[in-house]
Amino acid sequence: MPYRAPVEEYQFLFDHVVDLERVAATDRFAEATPDMTAAILSEAGRMCQDVLYPLQRPGDLHPAHLENGVVRTSPGYGDGYRAIAEGGWVSISASPEHGGMGLPMTVTTAVNEMMSSACLSLQLNPLMTQGQIEALEHHASDALKDIYLPKLVSGEWSGTMNLTEPQAGSDVGALRSKAEDNGDGSYAVTGQKIYISWGDNDFTENVCHLVLARLPDGVPGTKGISLFLVPKFIPDETGTPGRANSLKVVSLEHKMGLHGSPTAVMQFDGATGWLVGKPHDGMRAMFTMMNNARLGVGGQGIGVAEGAYQHALAYALDRKQGRTPVEGGTGTIIDHADVRRMLSTMKADIFAARSIALTCAAATDMQTATNDAGWGARAAFLTPIVKAFGTETGMAVSEMGVQVHGGMGFIEETGAAQYYRDVRVTAIYEGTNGIQAMDLVARKLMDGGEAGFAILDEIETLAEAARGQLPDLAEPVWQASESLREAMEWMLENSDLNQRFAGASPFLRAFARVLGGHFHLKAALAEGGNGARTRLARFYITRLLPEHAGLLAHATSGADDLYALSTEDLGA
Amino acid sequence: MPYRAPVEEYQFLFDHVVDLERVAATDRFAEATPDMTAAILSEAGRMCQDVLYPLQRPGDLHPAHLENGVVRTSPGYGDGYRAIAEGGWVSISASPEHGGMGLPMTVTTAVNEMMSSACLSLQLNPLMTQGQIEALEHHASDALKDIYLPKLVSGEWSGTMNLTEPQAGSDVGALRSKAEDNGDGSYAVTGQKIYISWGDNDFTENVCHLVLARLPDGVPGTKGISLFLVPKFIPDETGTPGRANSLKVVSLEHKMGLHGSPTAVMQFDGATGWLVGKPHDGMRAMFTMMNNARLGVGGQGIGVAEGAYQHALAYALDRKQGRTPVEGGTGTIIDHADVRRMLSTMKADIFAARSIALTCAAATDMQTATNDAGWGARAAFLTPIVKAFGTETGMAVSEMGVQVHGGMGFIEETGAAQYYRDVRVTAIYEGTNGIQAMDLVARKLMDGGEAGFAILDEIETLAEAARGQLPDLAEPVWQASESLREAMEWMLENSDLNQRFAGASPFLRAFARVLGGHFHLKAALAEGGNGARTRLARFYITRLLPEHAGLLAHATSGADDLYALSTEDLGA
Repeated sequence: MPYRAPVEEYQFLFDHVVDLERVAATDRFAEATPDMTAAILSEAGRMCQDVLYPLQRPGDLHPAHLENGVVRTSPGYGDGYRAIAEGGWVSISASPEHGGMGLPMTVTTAVNEMMSSACLSLQLNPLMTQGQIEALEHHASDALKDIYLPKLVSGEWSGTMNLTEPQAGSDVGALRSKAEDNGDGSYAVTGQKIYISWGDNDFTENVCHLVLARLPDGVPGTKGISLFLVPKFIPDETGTPGRANSLKVVSLEHKMGLHGSPTAVMQFDGATGWLVGKPHDGMRAMFTMMNNARLGVGGQGIGVAEGAYQHALAYALDRKQGRTPVEGGTGTIIDHADVRRMLSTMKADIFAARSIALTCAAATDMQTATNDAGWGARAAFLTPIVKAFGTETGMAVSEMGVQVHGGMGFIEETGAAQYYRDVRVTAIYEGTNGIQAMDLVARKLMDGGEAGFAILDEIETLAEAARGQLPDLAEPVWQASESLREAMEWMLENSDLNQRFAGASPFLRAFARVLGGHFHLKAALAEGGNGARTRLARFYITRLLPEHAGLLAHATSGADDLYALSTEDLGA
Repeated sequence: MPYRAPVEEYQFLFDHVVDLERVAATDRFAEATPDMTAAILSEAGRMCQDVLYPLQRPGDLHPAHLENGVVRTSPGYGDGYRAIAEGGWVSISASPEHGGMGLPMTVTTAVNEMMSSACLSLQLNPLMTQGQIEALEHHASDALKDIYLPKLVSGEWSGTMNLTEPQAGSDVGALRSKAEDNGDGSYAVTGQKIYISWGDNDFTENVCHLVLARLPDGVPGTKGISLFLVPKFIPDETGTPGRANSLKVVSLEHKMGLHGSPTAVMQFDGATGWLVGKPHDGMRAMFTMMNNARLGVGGQGIGVAEGAYQHALAYALDRKQGRTPVEGGTGTIIDHADVRRMLSTMKADIFAARSIALTCAAATDMQTATNDAGWGARAAFLTPIVKAFGTETGMAVSEMGVQVHGGMGFIEETGAAQYYRDVRVTAIYEGTNGIQAMDLVARKLMDGGEAGFAILDEIETLAEAARGQLPDLAEPVWQASESLREAMEWMLENSDLNQRFAGASPFLRAFARVLGGHFHLKAALAEGGNGARTRLARFYITRLLPEHAGLLAHATSGADDLYALSTEDLGA
C-alpha cells in the first residue's frame, strides 16, 4: 500500500481555501505562481513517494543507535536525507540571499506535511533545520549568517534546538546551562540538554546546535536566558568544519515510536558557541524558532493522519468480510456503515486540520510580505490551534486507522501501528498541547480578542452568504460560531487566568471544530454546493461539528469546581 | 511507582452502586458475604501488587517467543501464573462442583480488573480459561466436564478460544476449518486459526483449545458451525495428559503491545477433539464464552486505565515544573489546571466505566441466581457497552497518562507508553468495538427496547429522587436520559438496520456517557451529596456528560448522507 502524495488536494486548498493567490500577489512572493507551486508539489510529492516512504518501516525496525559515542542512523536515511537536501526541500521558504527558494511558508507547510506522511522520523531532521534557519535569519549577526546559513540552506549541515533540561521542560526559565564570555567573541557553553531531536547524525557534515543558556549576569527565569549557536565542528573562516567542539551525545532515548529519529541527551562542556541576538534576549529568538516549529509539528500530525488514512482506505477497499449491506458496493468492508463512518471521519478531520494549518501558514506569509500586524496576530492566534488540533487529529486518525484494520492493526508488519506510535510524541514536543491551549486563552487573548473575533466575523460572514445556497450547512456553522464567540467572551471576562486554563484544552478543540466547519463550508461553496466536497462538508457539519457544544460547556466551567477536587480526592 | 489495588473503591461500588447485597441475598450466592468479598479483594489485590505488577515490564521487554516450535514465555510468567492458579483466581465464579469458589461474576470482574492493571499480558491467560470453563459448564457432556473442568478450574491446564481464520474474522460464519467423525466419539479437526491468544505456554501441563469447525453436513454460514474441545495433550481415563495431539503453533505475531502474551497462528492437522454441545450448534456455546470474554475485555480496558491513572497521578504529585497557581498546593504539576483536568477526567471516566462493568456483572449474577429473563436481558444489553466503553476508556486514559508525563511519556522506561500500547488491542479483539455497537442497536434492541428503556427508567427515577438534594447534578442526568430515550426511539423506528449502524458507535458511547452520569449521581447520593464523590460527580456531569448531545446528533443522522459519500469521494 504505497503512499500517494495528495498534490491535487493541496492545489485545491491553495486555490479555494487559503487564497494563495493573494500571497502571490505581493512583491515578496511574486514567484509563487500557480505553475511554480504545482511544479514544487509534484516534484516534492514524487520524492516523498519514491524515496522517503520506503524508509518508514526500516527506520522503525532499525532505530538510530549510539556506537562508541557516534550516532548511526537507520538504513537508507543518509540517501533519503540527501534527496531532501538536493531537492531544496529544507529551504523552500529560506531567503534567496543564502540560497533558499524564498517561497511562501504555505508551500513549505504542504511539502513538510507530505514528508511527514512518508517518513516522519526523517522529516523531523529538516524541520528542525528550518526553524534554525528562520531564527538565524531574524536574529544572528551577519558574520554568523554568512558562515552558517548557506550550509544549513543547502542541507550540508543540519540544525537542532537545545532547550529542555531535566528540571526545565515546559518551564524553560528553570534552565541551568551556563555560558561564559571567552573574550574573543565566542562563549563557553556548559550544561546538559535532553530530548534533543536529531542531536547528531552520520549524514551531514556538521550539526549546529542552538542552545539556550544563562550568562553570568543573567537573571533567574526566562528574562536571563541567551541563545547560542554551538556547532559540532567549529568552522574555519572559509566555513570548513574544523576541530571537534566540546560536546557529545551522552545517550539516546528508547521511545515508543519515531525510532528513526535519534533523541539525544547532549552534554556541553565549555563548548564554543556564538551569541545569537542580544544577551538575555534568547526567548525572543527561541519563539521565532518555536512558532515555526509549532506550525511544523501540527503539520506532522496532519501528515501522519494522511498516511494512516491512505493505509486504512486501501485496506478497507481490499478486505472482504461479511455480507455487505450495499447493493452495487465494492463487496469489501468499506461498504459497512461503521467502517465508512471511521473513514469519513478521518478524511473530514484531515481536511479540517489541513485547512487550519495552511491558513495559518498563509497568514504568516502575508505578515512577512506586508508587515501588517493583523496578519501576524492571526498567524499567532492560529499557531497553537494548528499544533494541538493537528497533532490530536494525527492521534485520532491513526487510532481509527488501526481500528479499520481489525486484528491486523495490532500487528506491526501491517504498518498501521507505526503511525499510531510515531505520532504520539507530536502532542508532547514543541510545547505540550496543554501549553498550546494555555497560550491560546492567555497570551493570544491579550489583544482583547481582536484576532480571534476577526476570525469569527469571517466565519459568520461566509455562513451568512451561504445561507441561501446551503442552508443546512451554513446555519449550524453560524450557530457554532456564535457559541464560540460567547465562550471567548467568557474567557475575556475572567481576568484570573487560571479560570481560563481550567477549560483551555476543550476551548482550543472547540475553536478548531468550528474552524473546520467553516473551511468545509468554504470548500462546498467552491464547488457550487454540489459534489464530493459538499458531501464531506455535510458529514462533518452534521456529525462532527456538534461536538463543539459539549466542549464549550466544559471550556466555560471555570477553575473552582476543578480545584474543589483536592489532590486527596484524586488519590487512587 | 508501584501499583496499589483499589480495594476500597470496589468495596464502595459493591455496597453502594451495584448492590452486591442483593446478589448475596440469593441462595446461589449466599456465600458472597461482605467478609468473604473483602477477604478476596484484599488477598487478590496483594497478589496483584506483589507478584503480577513486577512482571509487567519484563513481559514487554522480553516477549514470548517460539523456540523450535515451543512457546517460551516471558521471565517470571510461570511463577506469576502459579500464583494466580494457587490463589484460585482463575475460578472465583466456577462451580464448586469442580473446585471453583462459586462466587458472583461481580467479584471475578473486580479481581480480573486488578490483574489487568498489574499485568495485562499474563491476565489474558486465565481470562481465556474462565470463558472456557463457563462454556464447558453450560454445554459440555458430563464425561468431558469430569476430565477437563477440575484441571481448568485448578489452573493446572489453561484454555484458549480458536475462532478466527484469515478470511473469517468479524464474519465467523466464513470459517473453513473442518471436523470429521472418527467413529469413536472423537472428531478429527483440521484447519488454521489465527490471533489465538495464549495459543501455547510453557507453564501449564496442558492447553485446551475450543475450536470452531464445520462438520461434513454443516451448512455454510454460522448455522453449520460446531464447537470442539481439542487438547494439546490427549488425557487418558485418569485425566493424565498423554500423547501429543496433531496441532502446533505455526508462528507468533509481532504486536504493538501485549508482548508477554503469545498470539499464535495455530495449525490443526486432523487433531483429536470432542464435540461440545450439539452438532451445528457451536455458535450458541461460543456466545456463552464470548459474552463472558466481552465483559472481561471491557474490564481489561478499565484495569489498564487504573494502572495508567495511578502511574500518572504519582508522576504529577512528584514532578515540579513552573510556578503553580495554587496557594498551599503541592508545588508539583498537579496544581496546574490542565494537568488536574486530565487527571480528573481519567478518574471520573474510570469510575463511570467500572460502575457499568460491575453493574453488568451483577445483572449476570442475578440472572444466574434467579433465572429471571429481565436480568439476563439487562446483562446482554450492557455487555457491548462494557466492552466498547471500557476499552475506549482504557485507550483514552492511557493516552492522557502519557500526556501527563510530558516528554517522559514517550520514553519506554517510564512505563506510561506500555499501557498505551498494550491496551490498544482490547478495542479490537473479542469483537471490535464497531461490532459491539452494531450488536447494541440491532440484536439488543430486538426486544423493542424493553431492556434499554428499563435502564433509562431507573436513571430517571433516581434523578427525580435526587432533584431536591442535588439539583445541579440531577437535572442534567435526567435531561441526558431523555435525549438518549429519543435517540433510542429513533433507532427502533428505523427498521432498516443500516440506518442504525451508521450511528451505532456514537450511540453506544452516548449511552455509556449517560450511564456514567447516573452512577456518579448514585455515588454522590450515597455519601449524602457532600464529599469527594460528589465533587467528582460534579466534574463529570458538568464537563464530560455534555458530550452526549453531540454524539446523539451523530447517532441519529442515518445512513443516507454517509453512503452519499461514495468510495470515490473517499479516495485520498
